[in-house]
Formats: sequence, C-alpha cells, structure tokens
Amino acid sequence: MELWYTEKQTPNLGITCLVRETLCHIKTPFQDLAVIDTLQFGKMLVLDGMVQTTEQDEFVYHEMIAHIAMQAHPNPKDVLVVGGGDGGAIREVIKYDSVESATLVEIDEAVVEMSKKYLPGISVGLSDPRVNVLIADGIKHVKESVGKYDVILVDSTEPVGPAVGLFSQDFYAGIYRALKKDGMLVAQTESPFFNRDLIRSAYSRIKSVFPLTKLYLASIPTYPSGLWSFTVGSKCYEPEEGKQKPVETKYYNSAVHKGAFCLPNFVSELLEAEER
Amino acid sequence: MELWYTEKQTPNLGITCLVRETLCHIKTPFQDLAVIDTLQFGKMLVLDGMVQTTEQDEFVYHEMIAHIAMQAHPNPKDVLVVGGGDGGAIREVIKYDSVESATLVEIDEAVVEMSKKYLPGISVGLSDPRVNVLIADGIKHVKESVGKYDVILVDSTEPVGPAVGLFSQDFYAGIYRALKKDGMLVAQTESPFFNRDLIRSAYSRIKSVFPLTKLYLASIPTYPSGLWSFTVGSKCYEPEEGKQKPVETKYYNSAVHKGAFCLPNFVSELLEAEER
Repeated sequence: MELWYTEKQTPNLGITCLVRETLCHIKTPFQDLAVIDTLQFGKMLVLDGMVQTTEQDEFVYHEMIAHIAMQAHPNPKDVLVVGGGDGGAIREVIKYDSVESATLVEIDEAVVEMSKKYLPGISVGLSDPRVNVLIADGIKHVKESVGKYDVILVDSTEPVGPAVGLFSQDFYAGIYRALKKDGMLVAQTESPFFNRDLIRSAYSRIKSVFPLTKLYLASIPTYPSGLWSFTVGSKCYEPEEGKQKPVETKYYNSAVHKGAFCLPNFVSELLEAEER
Repeated sequence: MELWYTEKQTPNLGITCLVRETLCHIKTPFQDLAVIDTLQFGKMLVLDGMVQTTEQDEFVYHEMIAHIAMQAHPNPKDVLVVGGGDGGAIREVIKYDSVESATLVEIDEAVVEMSKKYLPGISVGLSDPRVNVLIADGIKHVKESVGKYDVILVDSTEPVGPAVGLFSQDFYAGIYRALKKDGMLVAQTESPFFNRDLIRSAYSRIKSVFPLTKLYLASIPTYPSGLWSFTVGSKCYEPEEGKQKPVETKYYNSAVHKGAFCLPNFVSELLEAEER
C-alpha cells in the first residue's frame, strides 16, 4: 500500500509526498501536529496541515530567515526568535561568535519537544549554552521587552490559528520597542505568487514602524509556489549587504544576500503602492 | 465531483491541481499531449504527463529563457528557438526591435497547433511577420546551419522522449557552429534540487564547447521544486549583464538579470567539479 500525504496549499493546489511512516500525530493545546517521514524530503513537521519544515530543504528557510539580519548587523549580541520552535533559526543564529544570548519564545511546547525527538539535525542548536528556550506567548514577551535585542526574527506559521497576532501593526510596533536603537527585524511573509495581500499589508505595517524596510526572496521547494518572501525592518543599518565573516551555509552567501533583494517586477509592483 | 490532475514530478513527489475541464488530450506522433484548464494556474500544457507551461506562471520561464541572452548580446538580429512550440519564448524574443528573424524549430506540429488554439496569450508571437515556424527536427536544423544565428534558445522538454538529443555534446557543438562568431546559447537545464546530475553534465558539455559558460536561476511554481536553472554558453559577451533597452516584462529586469547569477552554495558546489 502506498501512502501519500497531500497538503492543500491553496483550495485549488496541493503538494503530495510518498510517506514512509507517520512518526507522530497529536493535538496540542494550540494546533494539530504531525511528524511524517517522506521519501522525497525526509522527516517533515506539519502544523495544522501545513508543512513547516523538512530535513531536505529546511536549510534554505532557516539560513535565509537568519543570515540576512545577522550579516547586515555589524555586531549582533542578543537575538530573539519568535516562534521557530523547531530550532532551525536558532541553529543559524548561534553560528556567530558575537552572539551572547539567543532567546526562543515558542507558544507550543510540543513543537520544541517533537523537534528535539524527531528532528535532531534541526533542533541541535537548542542545547547551546547561549540559548534560552521560553515556552510562552511571543506577543506578550515582545511587549514586555524594551531595548533588549539586536535582532528579532519572526519565524511564524501562516497567519491562521496562534500566529494571527504575529502579523499585526501592534506586534511590529512592539518589536521596534523591544529592539536596541540600531536593531533589526526579519519576518517571514509568505509567497509572492499566492499571498499578495498578506505581503502588501505586512510590508506596509513594518514600513510604518521602521525607517528602512525591504523585502527579499528565497526558493523553498516545500512551501507554496516554491518562492518565499521575508521582510526586514531596520532602525539604521542597510539590510542589503553582509558585513560579518562568512559562516558555514548551504544556501546563503554574500552574492545570494545581494541577489535576494533583486525583486522580479511582479513582486516590486506589489510593494509600489506602499512606497508612495 | 472534483477532478484533480496530479503530476508525479519525481517517484516520491507530486503537484496536484483542481481541474475545471480537460480541453484536449491526444497522442501525437511524438508524445502524449493534453491541455487542461485548472483553477490555480489557468490553462496548462502537459506533454508526456509533465507540465510544460501554464497561463499563470509561464511569464517567468519564457522571460528568463529569452531575456538574459537577448539583453547580454549587444545586437541580436537572428534568433533560433529549438523546441518551444507553445511560442512563449518567441513572444519574448520579438520584443526587441533589433530582431530581424526569429525561427522556431518544433518537431511536433500538434504542440504549435494546440497552443495556437488553446493558449493564444502564449502563442501570440507566432503570427509576427519576422517569425518563421519550421516543423522539423531541431537537431538536424542546427546541424545544417552554419554561422547563422546571434542567439539560440533551447526550449526543450525534459530529457526523455524526443528531447534526449537536445542535451548531448554533439548538439551543443552543432549549436556553436550554427551561431555567428559572437553568438550566445541558452538552454533550460532543469531543477538544482532534483536534477543535479543533469545540470552537471549539461554544464560541463556546454563548457567544453563555449569559452564562457554560466548557470542562472528563476522561480517557476509549476516546475519541480519551484527553482529552475538555465545554462548560457557565450562565444565572447559576458552573460551576466543586460545591455539593451528595457522591454515590457513581469519578472525580468536588470537587477533580476544580475541576481539570477547569484548562486546558492549548494548550486555552485554542483558546478565546482566542472570548474577545475
């Protein structure tokens, strides 16, 4: 018997993967959580029916959410990751010797636990002595933090369920206050092919708070359309150039850093209304 | 009843689309040909079970196979497209006033006919007076042409069935001869996530023939992994920079031109063995 897992990425489109084994499928207090072992992408973390990360292509997302800000900031010491309970973003952040503290605020403890159990290659960084894992509401944590972080990464799920508040104007304003005076934000902002309204609104909200706002792109096979966007908000540093020594990566490099900001016309047109 | 069309992109992975209507499904002398109307991507041309082009995302592939060479060549007058019977690459080529002749050599007449009938937005360029459509074997046409073309685009299907010969060393050597002394080749060379051996061999074969060989990338949602590669072979002009006046495009622009050559580490590592 062949078992195929199909994610309906939109009402009219799906991605379907041949499954070796379902390793875990539970209801957490926040969401439906599954870890599936697939032949194409290895182990896959699925939340509320949406693929979050896979062993085979996780490197793109985790490197690209982390290294743009980590490289563009001249001396990132204190870093916060909101969401990202799998630990992949943290693993990239602690590649920098400048980092003194890396805090993960994940609302759903089961994401951290299941990632530690089933995705050790992704969650490996969580045991680093500089890392502090808080099981808590990221929105509340950000609200209570003032001038504390050099870099904040919003590694959220899609804006449904627990992540809705992570795309709000209030939240971005809270992040601005939680950052030091030269801090930088990066938020994942979905697909420019399929989530155009979301990108427009997240971009304009971040832009209304941060003096420098830029969108950049990366190619992630298991995410809808394969093309993914991230939005940087920066208090003073130009986000488009890496300043740090290179760290070991499989996707990111200084050319990719610049190239990620070279937006196709249909993407930059998305933002133009917000640029005026 | 909901009808879903599933393309098995690899033995372990598929893309599945909700179908409005199957407009045409025939056996041609060369392949199985279908035109399906899907809710997500509009009309879709499928050859031997592989999505070739769709109304919604065709602009990426057709712009990116055409404009890199058309912009990097200072004065492209005579252009050949091998394959590409849908007409999308030709539509982009004839956007340049410098073009005096654009020849399409497609082996399968049914691809041209069905594209004219069902995909008028893609095939529109085929009626331009500068365009010459030959229903013939592209390999033979290339072999018989000497010093004739400024730019040759190899817009092939996957290297199975009629397209196998379009990835051979002999064919690339033939293209070198068919080009003028400052000519350029661009060939589609599949996904860097899923077709690593093919990229390696196509790149090394083109490199053994052309003094300048470069790989570049574009994001195409309906192609396996969403990330696609093209390989340029150039007799003298640097491929990485556009020299022409801008033409109207939805994906391509001069920043995208440069950014497309900024390769992630896992892609440039693919080519390194060939670089030594």
